Amino acid sequence: MTSVSSVHNFKDDKERDIFILQSVRSLCEGNNHYISNAANISALLFEYIPNINWIGFYFLHNNILHLGPFQGKVACTHILVGKGVCGTAVTEKKSQRIANVHDFPGHIACDSASNSELVIPLWYNENIIGVLDIDSPLFTRFSISDEIFFTQITAIFSEHSDFSFYSSVIT
Amino acid sequence: MTSVSSVHNFKDDKERDIFILQSVRSLCEGNNHYISNAANISALLFEYIPNINWIGFYFLHNNILHLGPFQGKVACTHILVGKGVCGTAVTEKKSQRIANVHDFPGHIACDSASNSELVIPLWYNENIIGVLDIDSPLFTRFSISDEIFFTQITAIFSEHSDFSFYSSVIT
Repeated sequence: MTSVSSVHNFKDDKERDIFILQSVRSLCEGNNHYISNAANISALLFEYIPNINWIGFYFLHNNILHLGPFQGKVACTHILVGKGVCGTAVTEKKSQRIANVHDFPGHIACDSASNSELVIPLWYNENIIGVLDIDSPLFTRFSISDEIFFTQITAIFSEHSDFSFYSSVIT
Repeated sequence: MTSVSSVHNFKDDKERDIFILQSVRSLCEGNNHYISNAANISALLFEYIPNINWIGFYFLHNNILHLGPFQGKVACTHILVGKGVCGTAVTEKKSQRIANVHDFPGHIACDSASNSELVIPLWYNENIIGVLDIDSPLFTRFSISDEIFFTQITAIFSEHSDFSFYSSVIT
């Protein structure tokens, strides 16, 4: 399957974003297993956010980001902290909003369809425990509003997910 | 996004299946993290297997199947052992190949597009630790050959994945 997310019938982006935030909250309030929540959040976002070709989670363990649940094509299984856009988000402890990934030094190309990227760190108890990674086939796909929106998603995810299931592997 | 997997240019199904088995082996040989492997296997199969609308993993913990990585629309986060097609595969300790899910007593409908289903138990050290679940929008989609093929996939997955990462949650 070669697909990107498509547009649903919302009045405008604001209405869509409110729907998504409410849906993410509903999903996470009914379940605290972080892998299940990451899997369903990826599916929900991939269904409703237009013009993205990959969205998913990486979780940090021993200075390596391990691939978690996602939607899209086969991806890199592990990324070293400091490497690529995802690893840089961990090192710099801040989101990375990249208009053209081909200009990013050390960019790790998983899907050749990706041209811009947004990576949001996942915070839990004041530690970064992973990232939410979003790729688009469009250049300059992600705005500062998108960054704020996806940061809200990660906050709901972290607030409602129980990471102590696997506390031994979270460093 | 409303999509089902599509057909690639293989000479025949046998050529496609050989390609997929080799690819799953390559993915798993380079990585032993079971969540990463489950995520990438779901993506690979969703890309190359025709006429499926959902494919993914559930992992067993305290008699509940918890949603793991998958490709497709938002899914049920947990399924009790003995309930639905997935829960029945665990109780009966054998694959469930269901031609029409609507005829299955207690069928749990996650995606209304699904009409037939194949569920393969995941074995590790002689215990069932979860299931691989595959849904199709077609009726009678899955043959005995499919069952054998997907069982081979789960064997490669279990052989190469390290479940001791999270041994505390595997019962």
